[in-house]
Amino acid sequence: MPVLEEVIAANEEYAADFGDRGALAIPPGRAFGILTCMDARLDPGKFAGLSEGDAHVVRNAGGRASDDAIRSIVISHKLLGTVDWFVIHHTGCGMELFTNEVMGDLLAQSLETVEIGPEGFKDVGEGPGSPAGRDVDWLTFGDLEQSVRDDVQTIRNHPLVSSRIRLHGYVYDVTNGKLTEVSGASA
Amino acid sequence: MPVLEEVIAANEEYAADFGDRGALAIPPGRAFGILTCMDARLDPGKFAGLSEGDAHVVRNAGGRASDDAIRSIVISHKLLGTVDWFVIHHTGCGMELFTNEVMGDLLAQSLETVEIGPEGFKDVGEGPGSPAGRDVDWLTFGDLEQSVRDDVQTIRNHPLVSSRIRLHGYVYDVTNGKLTEVSGASA
Repeated sequence: MPVLEEVIAANEEYAADFGDRGALAIPPGRAFGILTCMDARLDPGKFAGLSEGDAHVVRNAGGRASDDAIRSIVISHKLLGTVDWFVIHHTGCGMELFTNEVMGDLLAQSLETVEIGPEGFKDVGEGPGSPAGRDVDWLTFGDLEQSVRDDVQTIRNHPLVSSRIRLHGYVYDVTNGKLTEVSGASA
Repeated sequence: MPVLEEVIAANEEYAADFGDRGALAIPPGRAFGILTCMDARLDPGKFAGLSEGDAHVVRNAGGRASDDAIRSIVISHKLLGTVDWFVIHHTGCGMELFTNEVMGDLLAQSLETVEIGPEGFKDVGEGPGSPAGRDVDWLTFGDLEQSVRDDVQTIRNHPLVSSRIRLHGYVYDVTNGKLTEVSGASA
């Protein structure tokens, strides 16, 4: 079955047993949020024990404190009352596997999906590439724990982030599902 | 129990029954992704029927096609092979309740959480505000379905987004859990 049909079928099953969730209010009931990676292996609803209505979840490649993630956190705190925010990066993150230069070169060659072999990323696409990838900061990182500390500090020091927000820095281990606090990260 | 302890306790329970999920590969097994809102009432894992390892999930305030969301989508397709991407906004979204001007004014007054009353947002904070909120595009919207069409087009027209990516525009109804395709959105 194509992905589109699978998603719609799964959604029909979900909606058929929706119960009283239709009455949930906008503000997160448990007044917290999670910033984490888009990685398919991570399910914050499961690994952090969320029910619908509990918490805001912001996700991007790497779980980075991008300007857009901070836009979301500021809206969340200012308008909807979240106080605790978890910044959660993870082991085995794809963002440790390349650099801005590598990504710029790959996209200049082709926009199509690479093959990953023993020698790293290999471009096999025939379509046209674009040099625009050289102008993007892809927000890769080399040191997992330091990336959490850096992102917590970026949020902490942002002029629109209230000092009332409590920031918690964690690493999620994709091999065992466990969260571990990053020493010196929380602020 | 404080939120921090609750999350850690929930995570210990999750990790205790992790099974063979520790062996999942980085590339999403079902080769698709979802861009949606951070809203606490939405759980894409549940409403779209995802298991760990299936799909990338990108979330921000509104589920908007921000530069950062597109950064994530391009990484996802180029390096990890996703082909289908769902853009899913939702009914009752907070992003329909304010404007850039309102948010700029509120943040200039205080960074603390507003009260929401019959007359709208009311600032009750005593802490200092910041004028920096006036320089941010908060990516609010006025027309829900049009916001999905706009974001699909923003992604479709981006110079780094491959024509091989299939984009599907949907609205999620928070009152009943159902996904509905937005007419004229998919591209």
